[in-house]
Amino acid sequence: MTAPYVPVSERNLFGYDFGPRQQAVDALAATLAATAIARDKQGGTALAERQAIRDSGLLTLRVPGPDGRPAESLPAVLRIVRHLASADSSLAHLFAFQHLQVETLTLFGTPAQQRRFHEHTAAGWFWGNATNDRDTRLRLLYENGRYFLDGERMFCSGSADSDGLIINVAHPAQAEGRIFLAVPTKRHGIEVLHDWDAIGQRQTDSGTVRFDRVKVENDELLGWEPGQPAAARLPRHTLRACLAQLILAEIYLGNTEGALAQGLDYIGQRRRPWPSLGEKAVLEDSLLQLRFGEYWTRYRGARALTQDAALALQAAWDRGDALTADERGQLALEIAQARLSAADAGLHIASNIFDQAGASATLSSTGLDRYWRNIRVHSLHDPLDHKRVALGNWLLNGQFPVPSGYS
Amino acid sequence: MTAPYVPVSERNLFGYDFGPRQQAVDALAATLAATAIARDKQGGTALAERQAIRDSGLLTLRVPGPDGRPAESLPAVLRIVRHLASADSSLAHLFAFQHLQVETLTLFGTPAQQRRFHEHTAAGWFWGNATNDRDTRLRLLYENGRYFLDGERMFCSGSADSDGLIINVAHPAQAEGRIFLAVPTKRHGIEVLHDWDAIGQRQTDSGTVRFDRVKVENDELLGWEPGQPAAARLPRHTLRACLAQLILAEIYLGNTEGALAQGLDYIGQRRRPWPSLGEKAVLEDSLLQLRFGEYWTRYRGARALTQDAALALQAAWDRGDALTADERGQLALEIAQARLSAADAGLHIASNIFDQAGASATLSSTGLDRYWRNIRVHSLHDPLDHKRVALGNWLLNGQFPVPSGYS
Amino acid sequence: MTAPYVPVSERNLFGYDFGPRQQAVDALAATLAATAIARDKQGGTALAERQAIRDSGLLTLRVPGPDGRPAESLPAVLRIVRHLASADSSLAHLFAFQHLQVETLTLFGTPAQQRRFHEHTAAGWFWGNATNDRDTRLRLLYENGRYFLDGERMFCSGSADSDGLIINVAHPAQAEGRIFLAVPTKRHGIEVLHDWDAIGQRQTDSGTVRFDRVKVENDELLGWEPGQPAAARLPRHTLRACLAQLILAEIYLGNTEGALAQGLDYIGQRRRPWPSLGEKAVLEDSLLQLRFGEYWTRYRGARALTQDAALALQAAWDRGDALTADERGQLALEIAQARLSAADAGLHIASNIFDQAGASATLSSTGLDRYWRNIRVHSLHDPLDHKRVALGNWLLNGQFPVPSGYS
Amino acid sequence: MTAPYVPVSERNLFGYDFGPRQQAVDALAATLAATAIARDKQGGTALAERQAIRDSGLLTLRVPGPDGRPAESLPAVLRIVRHLASADSSLAHLFAFQHLQVETLTLFGTPAQQRRFHEHTAAGWFWGNATNDRDTRLRLLYENGRYFLDGERMFCSGSADSDGLIINVAHPAQAEGRIFLAVPTKRHGIEVLHDWDAIGQRQTDSGTVRFDRVKVENDELLGWEPGQPAAARLPRHTLRACLAQLILAEIYLGNTEGALAQGLDYIGQRRRPWPSLGEKAVLEDSLLQLRFGEYWTRYRGARALTQDAALALQAAWDRGDALTADERGQLALEIAQARLSAADAGLHIASNIFDQAGASATLSSTGLDRYWRNIRVHSLHDPLDHKRVALGNWLLNGQFPVPSGYS
Repeated sequence: MTAPYVPVSERNLFGYDFGPRQQAVDALAATLAATAIARDKQGGTALAERQAIRDSGLLTLRVPGPDGRPAESLPAVLRIVRHLASADSSLAHLFAFQHLQVETLTLFGTPAQQRRFHEHTAAGWFWGNATNDRDTRLRLLYENGRYFLDGERMFCSGSADSDGLIINVAHPAQAEGRIFLAVPTKRHGIEVLHDWDAIGQRQTDSGTVRFDRVKVENDELLGWEPGQPAAARLPRHTLRACLAQLILAEIYLGNTEGALAQGLDYIGQRRRPWPSLGEKAVLEDSLLQLRFGEYWTRYRGARALTQDAALALQAAWDRGDALTADERGQLALEIAQARLSAADAGLHIASNIFDQAGASATLSSTGLDRYWRNIRVHSLHDPLDHKRVALGNWLLNGQFPVPSGYS
Repeated sequence: MTAPYVPVSERNLFGYDFGPRQQAVDALAATLAATAIARDKQGGTALAERQAIRDSGLLTLRVPGPDGRPAESLPAVLRIVRHLASADSSLAHLFAFQHLQVETLTLFGTPAQQRRFHEHTAAGWFWGNATNDRDTRLRLLYENGRYFLDGERMFCSGSADSDGLIINVAHPAQAEGRIFLAVPTKRHGIEVLHDWDAIGQRQTDSGTVRFDRVKVENDELLGWEPGQPAAARLPRHTLRACLAQLILAEIYLGNTEGALAQGLDYIGQRRRPWPSLGEKAVLEDSLLQLRFGEYWTRYRGARALTQDAALALQAAWDRGDALTADERGQLALEIAQARLSAADAGLHIASNIFDQAGASATLSSTGLDRYWRNIRVHSLHDPLDHKRVALGNWLLNGQFPVPSGYS
Repeated sequence: MTAPYVPVSERNLFGYDFGPRQQAVDALAATLAATAIARDKQGGTALAERQAIRDSGLLTLRVPGPDGRPAESLPAVLRIVRHLASADSSLAHLFAFQHLQVETLTLFGTPAQQRRFHEHTAAGWFWGNATNDRDTRLRLLYENGRYFLDGERMFCSGSADSDGLIINVAHPAQAEGRIFLAVPTKRHGIEVLHDWDAIGQRQTDSGTVRFDRVKVENDELLGWEPGQPAAARLPRHTLRACLAQLILAEIYLGNTEGALAQGLDYIGQRRRPWPSLGEKAVLEDSLLQLRFGEYWTRYRGARALTQDAALALQAAWDRGDALTADERGQLALEIAQARLSAADAGLHIASNIFDQAGASATLSSTGLDRYWRNIRVHSLHDPLDHKRVALGNWLLNGQFPVPSGYS
Repeated sequence: MTAPYVPVSERNLFGYDFGPRQQAVDALAATLAATAIARDKQGGTALAERQAIRDSGLLTLRVPGPDGRPAESLPAVLRIVRHLASADSSLAHLFAFQHLQVETLTLFGTPAQQRRFHEHTAAGWFWGNATNDRDTRLRLLYENGRYFLDGERMFCSGSADSDGLIINVAHPAQAEGRIFLAVPTKRHGIEVLHDWDAIGQRQTDSGTVRFDRVKVENDELLGWEPGQPAAARLPRHTLRACLAQLILAEIYLGNTEGALAQGLDYIGQRRRPWPSLGEKAVLEDSLLQLRFGEYWTRYRGARALTQDAALALQAAWDRGDALTADERGQLALEIAQARLSAADAGLHIASNIFDQAGASATLSSTGLDRYWRNIRVHSLHDPLDHKRVALGNWLLNGQFPVPSGYS
């Protein structure tokens, strides 16, 4: 009576169109998907897949071209992040953070630094980070006219197998100041530990990096012209945290799309009808349809907010030095609500979709649980309830969130 | 410590920009708001406010101009609907349905009929409707070469004090056919009853209209050229139901904005702090902020889906005869998810915001409960769970909803 | 195919058994139900129904008998409250608060005062209250050896048509002290205003009472032996607030039962099937069944917590002076979770059940919205989120709520 | 300012009192807890812990004593199940199903069979099962006057390392009939596969059992007197499914208690305050307290329904042959709502508690995710939405669920 089930891969259910990058994105997504379930169980560093990302040519999308403009807009890059996350959330995160580090170089580097480091990126550098603000064990020392990094950092996503590291650290000479550094990962004294073992995002290598009196050259302090005072920080510099927060929302959405796609395919291709339904086919079960309607509505609401926030981020980015603190504050709230909505929808859908897929879908071999695990880990980046409070504070008191590494 | 509370009316919290209509919209919104709480209690026909709408010049926004294009796009008109609904949900509904009836004339009328009826609209006609599909007591008779309407209809919003009625009825000569008619309300034999008394949308006059062998002229049958077969129905003709459904979502959103605005103002201007909070001001209560953050996220998700759906509706409208059934089906689903999201968010916020406003906000004089009552009544237009099932059916079986008066 | 619908009144859906009071309770419930919808619209004082309550003999259930024990346990009385609330939430509230005032006399009165005031109750007194802690406009003055009440109080439920008033006021001689008074309502200088007009609980007469230098006799100060220091307050005295809070939960539950019963009957007896369901009967619609299953599960969870809390309250009551502060704290938390659960379930069910009953159920004549309105008003007695915080504070810090008029 | 955090193990937060079994239960719970996180990762058969359960003396609690009464009531046994599940959900499930199999023997066995198999249990038998109704690959054959089992079964929890198996299979001679068998696991031809690898309940050994023409003795067909017709099935025989369903609810509740206890301890002992909270201690964060208040209210609602259902089950059990179909139907609904409530609360709490515990709590070493995984797997035993429909069908049509292996 009903037509046979059509797999999600044969429908463009999520409405993607990557234009000239379509082939590269599709190929990379397929490569990642092929082994994603196995690698999720395994954890550790995905050397081959990181290399596939390097080879895809997609790591340089935000490196400014000769005209000073990157090849792709932020919304376009974020859509690629989301789509890759539906196949492999860990590597999509590393891919996304590459662009975050490239933007860090663009935002904070002197023209000379931008030239030099963007050349590295163009030559294939995959950037990792050690920018976790809350871990103050890492210090930048200044001794006898030389800078040293000493101590350690946790949650350093993408540091393993990276070519360069972006590091955020207290400036030794400025009480409140934070400074970004860019150093090659192979520098003497840097040790990347392989100690990341969480329940999700298992191949993000978000473990510890140790720095044993690592020498830092003057021109590795971003924005630091020798003999000049540090450049003043403008609202546009605080957009780094906005991009980082929006990447989180896109990762949740990608996992939500993964859960929906795998859930639909599982039901359409494998699920046996429950006896009490009698002769009616599983796909005609109105209870099943109802729940998918609930999921889809929540997913689409979150996606709409996230896509709108990406456009707003690009607009703010394009404002450059003219961006005001209030405009930045408004943007931060748009991104906060996107992230809240995407986390809520994602956790709900990724946890509940098992009710439709049935008991057999909990066998480890299906990997259907990885979406919940990935979103669960990633949504704890910083407390979601604080984002809700920030929105309420703005509504009641008209105050925007104070820019920080998390807001 | 904190700055004094700034009323919502002094902030553009909802981000409206009506361009050249700003003044007319603001003036009309202010007129409606001035007496909305009192009229909500009273019910009945809002003669003065209906006249204010006529006088605003906004009833003709969708009448095609000399170039064949209306003065405002559908999304622009729908934004006005939403904003008016935050002040007066009943009259916003009548205002919205005016445009629905105008589009009905454009969609179904012959060129001559369009000319004639659009001239009526331009001259100030406020249209009511008797298009409730499910009430089959009204029949179109054909006797001795003349048409008659006989019977009655319920849920005829806007019929009282209307100049013309759009009526949807079974065609006497076509088994499955439905035909739209446009007749002057003052036609002999038409009696508009004042029997609408519901818990919300109290001034929509959605009561009964009786037709006692009402004569209908041939050229009042829309799309009916004398001596010609009825024009074939194309996918674009089914957009009428899409517009009607999207209006519902906008009404919910407008009420949600009203509840948020009034709730914020009530708390900011009147609410006493609860003793256990000690010296801390109400506006600094993080629990209060948290809940407003939850409300805002839900509201904005629903708004994003609704605004996207309005753009999609305009795009479909612009496709004209080229619109395919699948494109229409996709649009119907976009609108369904907008309506679901807006109803969910609206009911949640309008009911729960009392928890923040406190017990005194339940005094009848505040009128804060009318948002819940309005959304509650309006969201029952047709069953929301059926919309969820329609979305699920599409996801599982790839089938689009069958066009009808409700889908 | 399916059997005809059986009205809820012919099934003991809620499992009530009032033993020897069955007839009195049934008769009173029927009397209240007969006019409840009309009186809800009307508001004001329900003189006839208040008299019917007096005549029912049920106002004295907690007056201690010759053996010092009341005729019915607290759980039994609370079950009657709940059942009456399903028919008429306002009068059920006044009925419940009668018992609260009687317990106030038992808890705080000297033996002589108990004797005297319980005799009044046995003789037919219906007690009202002016115990709203937060309204400090009412003061007890001590001038020239005489006490006077002066000022006014809001939220004085049941004061209209009452025979006596229980009043809670700051003691003029004790900085932190609160004292209860019992005075006849007809005492010179007491004016009960008829200014209560809220969206729900419309016949609770919870308006303002004015006191114009009202004389208070020494023996109307409860627990005050002339020439003796005021009796020390023990944990058991703080049970008054526990009972008041639990009454709230029972009122929500009663309204929830009312919404479920009326919703089921409306669907079973009047609702037309939606066309898309084809030939299938409304009652066989699995979507409808699903939602009722959701409602029932929530209602029953709230009821179970409330019934358990009633048993715990009785046990604490029976401990008398031996009751410890920690035992009282534990009880307060049990009652808090009952109230939270009942408010959540009630608001959810009373608002959403319209989705199953359909648009016609929003006609004012049905009165189906009064359950939401009643719960909405009553659940704002004091902030629910503060109760949640109290539970969390106990879980994290082991601290019990500080006893007050609200906790 | 606040007192130091007191671990859950030093407070009787969940209110357990196991009377004379306290020491045995505590010791067993401690043994299971000591290695539960490691064994959850490992999966497979927990031989040492199964032996510890055998040694605890708790496997025989439902074996009838000389007076025909078991040592503990069903509610008492179920409380032990719940408490063990907070430490080790897999082994708690096997422990619970032991009692289910013992009851199966009591319900279906002839007096002689009861005597014989209860003696085995008293002697230390740990029973596994192969009773999954939906897997029809296993057949009971009757050839030349001998019975044989042939085929295979999936979801055979507890079969590994078991001494006996309870098997449910279609009777070869009765079209609609199902018969229970009890056979020793070591019987020739029975092969227990170690192929259970799910995301939760990882040590329940719920894998496949193969039967290769396994001989079955006549007196291993429960209730089958040689030369007699099979005993008629009474409502009380269908209580087996009721007990099985209620065990599910208890397992969810136990996991919920585990998540709450571990979450509280993690926050109290390890979580660093988030910078924006300033000097305020984590435990004083009202947002954190609010969420725990929400969790606790949901947990307690589910627990109350589950405990009430256990009492109702015992009452039904005690009715014996007098139990009517309607009484059984009512009980089944009580258990359904308990299971729904416990699954909802458990999934919500076990997933969301990470928001309070923070990112570090997602490290694999904490094992905090196992509660979600266990409930997620176990709650799919049979579709929860069908239980909701069953409740709604009863409310609307007065029909009780048709007894089966799942209802």
